[in-house]
Formats: sequence, C-alpha cells, structure tokens
Amino acid sequence: MKGKLDFIFRPQSIAVIGATNRKGSIGRELLHNIIDYEFEGKVFPVNPTKSVIHSIKCYSTILDVPDQVDLAVIVVSKEHTLDVLAQCGEKGVKGILMITAGFKETGHAGAELELKVLEMVNKYGMRMVGPNCFGIINADPRVHLDATFSKLRPSFGKIGLISQSGAMGEAILAQAQDVRIGISMFASIGNKADINENDMLEYWGDDPTVEVILLYLENFADPRGFTTLARRITRNKPIVIVKSGKTTKGAAAASSHTGALAGLDVSVEALFEQTGIVRVNTIEEMFDVANALAKMPVPKGNRVAIVTNAGGPGILATDALIGAGMKLPEFSPKTVSAIQPILPPGTAVNNPLDLVAGATGVEFKKALSHVVKDPNIDSVIAICVPPVTIDQTLVADAIIETSKITKLPLYACFMGVTYGTGAFERLKEHGIPAMIFPESAATTLALIDKYRRWLSRPEGSLVKVVGDKKKVAAIIKKNRQEQKEAVIGDEALQILSCYQIPVASYKYAFSKEEAGRIAAKIGGPVVIKVNTPFILHKTEYGAVAVDLRTPAEVVSAYADMEKRITKAFPKSKEQFSVVVQEMITGGVETVIGMTTDPSFGALIMFGLGGIYVEVMKDVSFRIAPLTDLDARDMIESLKGYKLLTGFRGSKPVNIASVEDSILKLSQLVLDFPDFAEIDINPFIVSADEHATKAVDARFVLAKGK
Amino acid sequence: MKGKLDFIFRPQSIAVIGATNRKGSIGRELLHNIIDYEFEGKVFPVNPTKSVIHSIKCYSTILDVPDQVDLAVIVVSKEHTLDVLAQCGEKGVKGILMITAGFKETGHAGAELELKVLEMVNKYGMRMVGPNCFGIINADPRVHLDATFSKLRPSFGKIGLISQSGAMGEAILAQAQDVRIGISMFASIGNKADINENDMLEYWGDDPTVEVILLYLENFADPRGFTTLARRITRNKPIVIVKSGKTTKGAAAASSHTGALAGLDVSVEALFEQTGIVRVNTIEEMFDVANALAKMPVPKGNRVAIVTNAGGPGILATDALIGAGMKLPEFSPKTVSAIQPILPPGTAVNNPLDLVAGATGVEFKKALSHVVKDPNIDSVIAICVPPVTIDQTLVADAIIETSKITKLPLYACFMGVTYGTGAFERLKEHGIPAMIFPESAATTLALIDKYRRWLSRPEGSLVKVVGDKKKVAAIIKKNRQEQKEAVIGDEALQILSCYQIPVASYKYAFSKEEAGRIAAKIGGPVVIKVNTPFILHKTEYGAVAVDLRTPAEVVSAYADMEKRITKAFPKSKEQFSVVVQEMITGGVETVIGMTTDPSFGALIMFGLGGIYVEVMKDVSFRIAPLTDLDARDMIESLKGYKLLTGFRGSKPVNIASVEDSILKLSQLVLDFPDFAEIDINPFIVSADEHATKAVDARFVLAKGK
Repeated sequence: MKGKLDFIFRPQSIAVIGATNRKGSIGRELLHNIIDYEFEGKVFPVNPTKSVIHSIKCYSTILDVPDQVDLAVIVVSKEHTLDVLAQCGEKGVKGILMITAGFKETGHAGAELELKVLEMVNKYGMRMVGPNCFGIINADPRVHLDATFSKLRPSFGKIGLISQSGAMGEAILAQAQDVRIGISMFASIGNKADINENDMLEYWGDDPTVEVILLYLENFADPRGFTTLARRITRNKPIVIVKSGKTTKGAAAASSHTGALAGLDVSVEALFEQTGIVRVNTIEEMFDVANALAKMPVPKGNRVAIVTNAGGPGILATDALIGAGMKLPEFSPKTVSAIQPILPPGTAVNNPLDLVAGATGVEFKKALSHVVKDPNIDSVIAICVPPVTIDQTLVADAIIETSKITKLPLYACFMGVTYGTGAFERLKEHGIPAMIFPESAATTLALIDKYRRWLSRPEGSLVKVVGDKKKVAAIIKKNRQEQKEAVIGDEALQILSCYQIPVASYKYAFSKEEAGRIAAKIGGPVVIKVNTPFILHKTEYGAVAVDLRTPAEVVSAYADMEKRITKAFPKSKEQFSVVVQEMITGGVETVIGMTTDPSFGALIMFGLGGIYVEVMKDVSFRIAPLTDLDARDMIESLKGYKLLTGFRGSKPVNIASVEDSILKLSQLVLDFPDFAEIDINPFIVSADEHATKAVDARFVLAKGK
Repeated sequence: MKGKLDFIFRPQSIAVIGATNRKGSIGRELLHNIIDYEFEGKVFPVNPTKSVIHSIKCYSTILDVPDQVDLAVIVVSKEHTLDVLAQCGEKGVKGILMITAGFKETGHAGAELELKVLEMVNKYGMRMVGPNCFGIINADPRVHLDATFSKLRPSFGKIGLISQSGAMGEAILAQAQDVRIGISMFASIGNKADINENDMLEYWGDDPTVEVILLYLENFADPRGFTTLARRITRNKPIVIVKSGKTTKGAAAASSHTGALAGLDVSVEALFEQTGIVRVNTIEEMFDVANALAKMPVPKGNRVAIVTNAGGPGILATDALIGAGMKLPEFSPKTVSAIQPILPPGTAVNNPLDLVAGATGVEFKKALSHVVKDPNIDSVIAICVPPVTIDQTLVADAIIETSKITKLPLYACFMGVTYGTGAFERLKEHGIPAMIFPESAATTLALIDKYRRWLSRPEGSLVKVVGDKKKVAAIIKKNRQEQKEAVIGDEALQILSCYQIPVASYKYAFSKEEAGRIAAKIGGPVVIKVNTPFILHKTEYGAVAVDLRTPAEVVSAYADMEKRITKAFPKSKEQFSVVVQEMITGGVETVIGMTTDPSFGALIMFGLGGIYVEVMKDVSFRIAPLTDLDARDMIESLKGYKLLTGFRGSKPVNIASVEDSILKLSQLVLDFPDFAEIDINPFIVSADEHATKAVDARFVLAKGK
C-alpha cells in the first residue's frame, strides 16, 4: 500500500507549527487531538515562545526538529505563513496541512496572499491541503491520525469523506458517528489552493482502505479532470456526492462562501450521467446511501422483496420503489409454498409479504430465510413496526442471522424507536443498514440501483473524427477580422461540411431565372429564403417560401418575394438574392447545439425542434467530449424520444445518423474552443440516413479569443 | 364544546366487554390502559367468567351494569360480537369501539359477518368505530381516555390523528412521542364499517381541541363526501395526508391489505389540488409538517430568511427552497445596517446570512432579532452546525428567546446531534420545530406554503349550466338499444350542442355535387372525411382531405376519395358519403375529456392535442363537479400553457372559452352518469372565442346502466 499522498495521510512524523497551550485555541485542540487519538508516529510541537507543550518538548522553528518531518500542520496567523513555509521547505517537509484562514475566502488581498503561499509550496516541491480548512483524519488503526480541531473520534470504516466546507465536514462526521458509519479517511480541503478533490480521488481511487468515496462539494476545481477520474474510479468503487449551489440563488451563496464560481446545475447533472456518480439530493440521502454501500454489496438487479409485519409501511415502501423504477416481482412457486405455512390460513403469499402484526422473530426468520433464496429477488427490505405484543430485538436478531446465510443485501426499517431502541442499536452493531422510515429504504435502494446500472453499462468509446481544420480556422479568422459576432449562413453550413455533418444542399441565386435553374438541378421540392441580414423574422415578411415543386413555381415565388421585400426594405434592392435549398420532407425536426459552461466548458445539447425545445424544454446535455454511448443516452433520455422511434404509424428515424452528427459536433468543439454557442437548427432526422440533414446553423464566436 | 361523536371520544362511562386478567391479552392491556391513563369517567369491566378484574367489580353482561354506559369497547371473539352488540343496544349504549378482528379483511365470510354487525349497530341507532382496529385516544386532560392496547402514553397537543391501519397508527404515535408532537385525539378506524374518515373529519372540523388533522389512509370510504368536507375544513385548519397505494403495485398491496379498492393516484392528486389538503409523500415529511403546523403559525408569504453559522447547510437549504418555488429576498437596508456590526469587517450581509463558524448565542440572538423585524421576511430558518468552540444550547436559547418577541414562524436545524443533544431537547421543549437536516426544514416550509396559497385563494363557484337533458337522454337510449359501445359522429356532436359546447359546423354529403354545395354554404376552407365506420385510421387510406378552399376543390377531392376508398373497401360502395366540416385554422389543438375513477367517479381532463397528450402526457385532471377556479387551475397547470398565451408572436387564445366548455362538460357528466369515458378531440381554441370549437367527439357508454 503506497499512495501518492501517503506523506500527508500516512506520515511517520508530524510537526504542529503554532501549537500552543492556550485554552480554546485551535493550536491546542489540534495537538491535543493528535496525541489523544494515539497517532502511531512522532509529533513535534513548534512554537518559538514555548519549550514544552502538553508534556512534549517544543521547538522554536521546524529547522530545530532533530528528526525528518513528513507533514507540517500549520496553525500560525496568516502573516507568518510564508516564513513558516520557507522553513518547512528548507527542512525537506513533504506535506503541508494549512489550517490557517484569511485567504481567498476574505477577498482580493487574501487571494493574493494565497497565490504567494502556493508559489512557496511549489518552490520546494511540497503538497498542501488547505488553507482555510478543518483538517484531516486517517482512522486506520495503523495510522490513527486526527489532525482536526473537533471533539470527534471517528471509528474505522470504509468511507473516504471529502468536504469543501469545514463546518459541513464536522457536521457530517458528527452525524456519521450517530448512525455508526465508520470512516477510513477524511479531508477538509478548504480553499483547495493545491490539493483539490481530483487529487483526493486519484489517491483514494487506488487505496484499498477506502471503499466508498463521499464528497460534499460547492464547486469543481477542474471539472474535466474530475470527469475523467470519476469515470474510471466508479467502475471500482462508488462515489457519492452532495453538490450544493444548484439554483442561481444557491450558486450566489456558494460564490460568496468560497469565492469560487459554481457551475450551472445542468452541467453537473450531465457530469453525473456520464461518470456513474451517485448524486444524492440531501445530506440525509447521503447518509442513507453511504450507510447502505458501506454495509451491504451492490444488488445484482432491481428486484426487491419486502417482508413486513404491517401492511401500511409495506405499501409506502412499494409506492416509493415502483415510483423510482424498481420492481417487486412475485415470489417463485417454491418460495410461496415454503412460506405459506408461516402465514395464517387463507392468507396469500404476496410481495410485499405481510406477516401480520403478531409476527415474532421466529416468523421473520423463517420468511426471510426463504425469501433470500428466491431466484427472483436481488435485495430485501425487512420492515417492523412496534406492536406491543412482540419483542423487536428478536426481529432484529432474525434479520442479523439471515444476513449471515445470504449474499443478498438486506435492509431494515424499524419505526417507532421509542419501543425499539435496543433493536435499532443491535442492527447497527451487526452491520445492517437500519432506517426509521420505509420510504428512506426504498429511495436508498433506487439510488444504488442507478449505480448498478452504471456498472453494467459498457464504457463506450470516444470516436475520433478528422475534420478539415484548416478551412474551419480560415472561416473563423475571416469572421473575427470582420468583427462578426457569429458565423451564419453559407459559412456556418460550410463549417458543418468540414466535419462531415450532412447539410441540405443549397445555392445562392441572384435572379429568378438562376433560382429556377438551381431548383431544377437540386430536383424535388425546394425552399427559397431571402439572403438579407436585415430581416430577422423571415416568416413575418414572407421572406421564406416552402415546398416549391417545379422550377416555374420557384421563378414565380422569387419574383413575388423580390417585389414585396424590396418594397419593405428598399436597401435590399442593391443586391437582392435568395438561398435555394433542398426541402427535406417527412423527417423529424431536431436541434443539435452547444453551449459553454464557465467551469465545464463545452456542453453538447440535443432536443426535438421548435416548440419541444422552446416550450417543453425537452432537451438533454452532455459534457464534451462525448462517447458513442453518451450520445445514444442523450437521445434516449428525451421525453419525446417516442417521436423518433416511429409514432402513429410513421417510420422510425435513423437514430444512428443523429448520433453520428452529435459526435462530429463534439469533435468540432474539441478542436475549436473558438465557439461560445452553436445551434444546428433545424437538423432534420429521417428514416433514410441519407435524408438526415442540417438545414441551418449559427456559430457564436467566443469573446476575446 | 359539544360534538357529534362526543359519546365515543368524551364518554362519561365505558364498559370493556371481554376484559380479562390474562397476561398479554388485548382485553387486559386495554382495561389496564384506561385505568393507568387515569380516565376521568367510570369504567365497567364485563366478562361472564369473572367477578373482579384489576380490583374492579366485573359484570356478567353489560345489561347488569348499574349505570348508563356511553361507550362499549368490545374485545370478545368475533363469534360473540352480534350477541354482545344486541345487549349493548338493549342497554342504550350510544357508541361502540369494536377492536375485534376477523371481518372483511379476512375474506368473504368475514365480510358477511361485518355486514350483520353493521345491521345490528344501525338497528339500535348506535355508532361504531372499527371493527379490526387498534382503538382510540383522547389526550385532553379533561377526558384522558386511552382505549388502545399499546404502551404509549401520548402527551396532549393540537394534532388529531386518523389511521386506517392499526400498526401504522401505533408506529406513528410512537414516532410522535419521540419528536414530542402532542396529540389531541387519535382514532384507528380499521375496516371503517360505520364511522369512517369523513365522520371523523366532520367531528374534528368543529372541535376546538383539534387544530391540525393528520390522516394515514389507504383508500377513501366516500371520496365525494371527503372532497366536500375537506374543501370546507381546510379553510380553518390544515389537513395533512399520507395516502398510500399510489402505484399499481402499491394499490394491489393496499387492496389485499384492507379488502378495499384504492383509487388511481391521478384522482387523489386532483382531490388534493381541489381541497387544499397538504399531501406529504413520506411519513417523515408528515412528521415534519405536523410538527411545524402544531408549533408555528402558517407563514404569511413565501419569503424565507436563513441565519446560519456555516455556509454549506445554508446553501443546501437555499437550493431546496428555491427548487420548491420559495423566495430568499434581500434584507431591507435597515436590517442590513443593523446586522453589519455583528459580522467580521468586510463581510456582506446576505440572505442566507452566514454568521461564520465562531458565532455564539449572542450573535445569533442579535441577528435573529433584526431579521424577524424585516418587512421582507415571512419565516426564518436558523441553522447551527457544531463547531467545538461554541455551546449549541446557547444558540438554542437565542432561537427560543427570539420566538417570544415575534409572530413569524421560526424553524431550527441542528446537525450533528452527538454534540447538540441538549440543544435539541431544549428546542423541542420550548415548541420550536427542530430538524437535523437543512433540506427537511426547506421542504416543510414549501409544503406549508402550498397550504398558505390555498388559504389565500378565493373559493371559486360551481357554475350551473342547463342542458337539453331530454335530447341527450334520447340519444343515449337509442345507442343503448342499438347495443352501441360508444356514441360517435353526428350524435356525439349533437350531445355537445345540447350543452352549448361549440361545434365546428358540418353536414353529410352523399354526392360530390352536394359536398360542393355544402362547402359553398359553410364558406372558407373545409375538411371532408369519409363517413364509414370500417376505416379506423382514416389518414392512412387518404380518407381525409383538409384545407379545401373552393367548392371545385371539394368536388374533385370527393371524386378522388370515392374512387380510392370504394376500391379498397368495396362494401363502402353501398352508400358512400362524407362529412363536410368547417376547417378551424390558426387555433391551438386541445383535448377535453372525461374518465371514470372507480372510487372518485368522473374526472375531467384537459390537455394540449395530439403529440402533447400522447407523447408528452401533458394533461391535467380534476374531479367533477369543477368550480370555475378548478377549470382555470387545470388549464394553467399544463407545462405547455405558454402555447395558449401567445407563443412566437401568435395571438393568445381565448382561455375563457375553453374554461367555459370544460365547465359545461362537468355539468354534462354530473347530469348523465351514463358515460364511462368522453373525448372531445380535437377541441380547437382560437383567439376569437367564436372560432373556438369542437371538431370531433366520442362518448363511451358505461356498462350495465
């Protein structure tokens, strides 16, 4: 076991710079905690004004410490941090835990100081957690390091916990202790000037003592790196996140809290879809999911059995499970006939299995032992409400004993803890995830099931597309020189062609005769549109004519249009012209687009066209670059997906051809960070892949690039 | 104080029939509870085999009891219930609490016995709670009746609790005790053969000791009666419901559990929308909402202030609040300048207000006292996470003291109870709703805010429409005689006309010349449709031609259609004919419909037409009869509502005209229970109310009426 950040989380020796005896001070609490938790290495207090602290020899500076020091914990005031860091560097310290606050979180001057701190850390090749953080813990008995200033003494377990906020970290640790969730390591990463959540993921991704990773995050330090790391790690161990700052108001609070820019939630959602991260919506869900993942294996499927001594909570759990897409299959005939004798005569063996109020530990034991053997079942929830006549601790024992004879995950739900405190404690002690409310067990299982689906999903692959980069670069350069805000019309469609995104054929006509000739050449119905930048709302001025079937119709429509438009916009007389474009009929109108998230970069969008996008907001986003599976997922996740698979007798469209164009756009935005927004609208998808084509496009240029 | 069921819930004297000394028996527990809880009236044990029980004289039959008996609690075996009831009747007993089980819930024979029990109860003019129930409680110190067989001793409070399931009732009482929610009365209504939730609502609606009504229900005994009662009572006191059996699977479990048919969830949702009931989704939410409603007033608005000692939970609460439609306004300038001195220099006064980790009771007290005076604020959440340096109980005291100087509702959220148990208990004791997780406080406030909006919503009125009932009855009769399953075509449109629902004008044509003449008379564009019942998918066979603008076009389309259709369907030659119908252009296609719920009866539906209904499921339901406000609500609740209010430059449609037609349909289904389903599809809504018209309709006849 040898990880990258072992010198911080598994140090042999620690110096506490700024250690003191002053009551209530962080410097005292920290040193006290390290000693009280019985750290397995050496500790050296450093403070120029003391010779001994807490019965331990104290050194004036770290340079005076006789031994090598792996980790320096710094709690001096911010004015002294640079000097102290320089000394650490000279001493050859590898890791810094900077508890001291007063940096980026306080404004401009603090941010500048933080930069200097980081420079100093880099200069000596050190790594640093913090500043402005609450400390780190390694609960592994081989290390037993508590370098925080809290009163908590976490028990050892499988969870690695990262918290961006110190206060939340402490609150989460306290709550974890209440529900008996063991911690492997904890890191309060504070302002994350150097070590951020990505470094921690990388470290814990390969660490065998961390089996489940929990994060409380307010923003992402490096979203792209995070995506890559998470995609890999979730294949081996679950990552559970509470990401705050979802709403604009919440994001504003996050920004003033950490001095960091929070991403839009749509990008965070996309991130979670693309990486298999379990996103929980509340801190309570985080505990429930962490508890379940730490104590039970991930179920093999979504088929749940409920065994209960009361109908009511069984129904509530069923409602919650079915509502979240889980299944409650019937029991196999073998299970049914095995369970029948336990029930009162004439009672049906159903799932949820209602053992009725009088059921004791004996009935629970019998029923559970058959249910866990049923091949239709992947996980079991045992529910017990407290009738006066039974002893809940015996029911708890029945569940505990069953857990020893099965590999299926077992969850317990015991309501009314006034009666059942003993039962509850017994379940916790024996590693059974125990909840109070039936719906919590259901929601937890559903969240974990989403992770199961991720584990069984193939990884997908990034499809490399080679575009005509030279030509695209030339178009961008020309438009920038002309100070255009966006590339539109002909040039926009040319960009698509450079990346082999199919475009409905078109040509410019400067006279009605030319328009007729072009139409004849295209063949089939055409559309003509006035080629004038003045007219924004083309349909309102009759500047578009559709479904023209013969060259004669085109000539006449041109003449009519020219008359009307040049009258309304005399300026357009100078060089009146139209676009004659192939009309794609019988396809479904869609939109493929791109928008830029301030922290995640390019997000690819797909939606059904027109009203679906604008009124129903039926669109999906993924972070670029997309794998083929990402593209497929984002198409299938639309509510209106049915419209693509053949609706009311229409032919299903060629979905592979949309997928293909989405992946090409993904490559284009990867090659060119020059675009802030892209709309390919409409993009008509047809049953015939050769009739799937973009009709119009618009590339908004990023500012100042 | 004199309520209808006082003889049950406020009896002067009780007989316990089937009382016994046998340990662990219900007959013993029940009598013991009544005495142990110190019931303020007299108790008479009744048992032919005993002369004394629990030091009290026991009587052979109730007829031997010397005093008058208000309430008889029956715990004899089911075989003896009829005899015992007859004796109760003879004795002049008014109320029965039938604990005994073994009735409807066990199958057919039990259901028959239950009917006989009910007959006996009715014969003597008695009223009965049960059978198959867990008992009743009145915690009012003037009564102090615990006629249950649990070990719970609820404290007196404002909550009236009704539970259909005995086990859930007991579990809820136990949990309520844990979180210190006081109970006024409790009723386990079991099989509700006589007294059901409606009787209880009526009783408690006028009872001053019950200020909040909580229900756990699996089905509704009389949904229409419930609707009427709830609509009235929610104006004075909140009703909070957990309704289980939402999903089909859940409903199946509910059915086998209580032998009762659960309604579809869509109707239950509609019920809650129309009555102002607070529907909670989980038992946990029920406790949070009940706790908040019992301890704090309903806020006057949706503007929340958060005061916290840590940014993280403040952001999480903000996310949850904004996501649920609540507001976090900026503080007034006066508040800002009052709070500024409390914060570290340079810190902004925002909402959420972050007092930073070092904040003690003093800072909380100062900040809260200013925030509750801010005119922009309707309610306050105080959040405290446990830094080691502060004493959480002092923060709790600050909140408690603030609650004494304000009428604003105050909620507390204290994470990490390992530290703060004392603080938590203190808050509970002083009537402050205290939660562990920030999101729970937010969700609770949002649920209560929905109730606030209901209180401020006008009541709406039922608009009486007089239809041509005679003619509709005749059409129904004729179709029944012809054994039709549905009234379609001409007759269906006639039914609409009988209730003044506007119909696009149409006429049948039996030759192309006639079709041309009709079109000329209608004027404007028309549609022609083959009038043949053989052809289900008219568009596929070209049996519909739209947008015919001249009589000549109509004649030619008719000829063309006749040729094609009679070739494909030779049988149609016999009497080929078409409908010529006015074509409504420029409107929005909608659907108005009706479906029958097995327990709620007619549900009126409204949705946007075509793909919106079929793919996006963008529809809303309300239970008939609808008030004008219900109709307006159901239109406005569509996701695609924007399409009606003018989208992309199109004129807003005349919404009053749809509302009008919805109310007319509501009257029609009220007058005629003959229809199982109705579709008015399409119903075109235009900007001009005179161009708002039904194009086609279909009335499915109810079976066996």
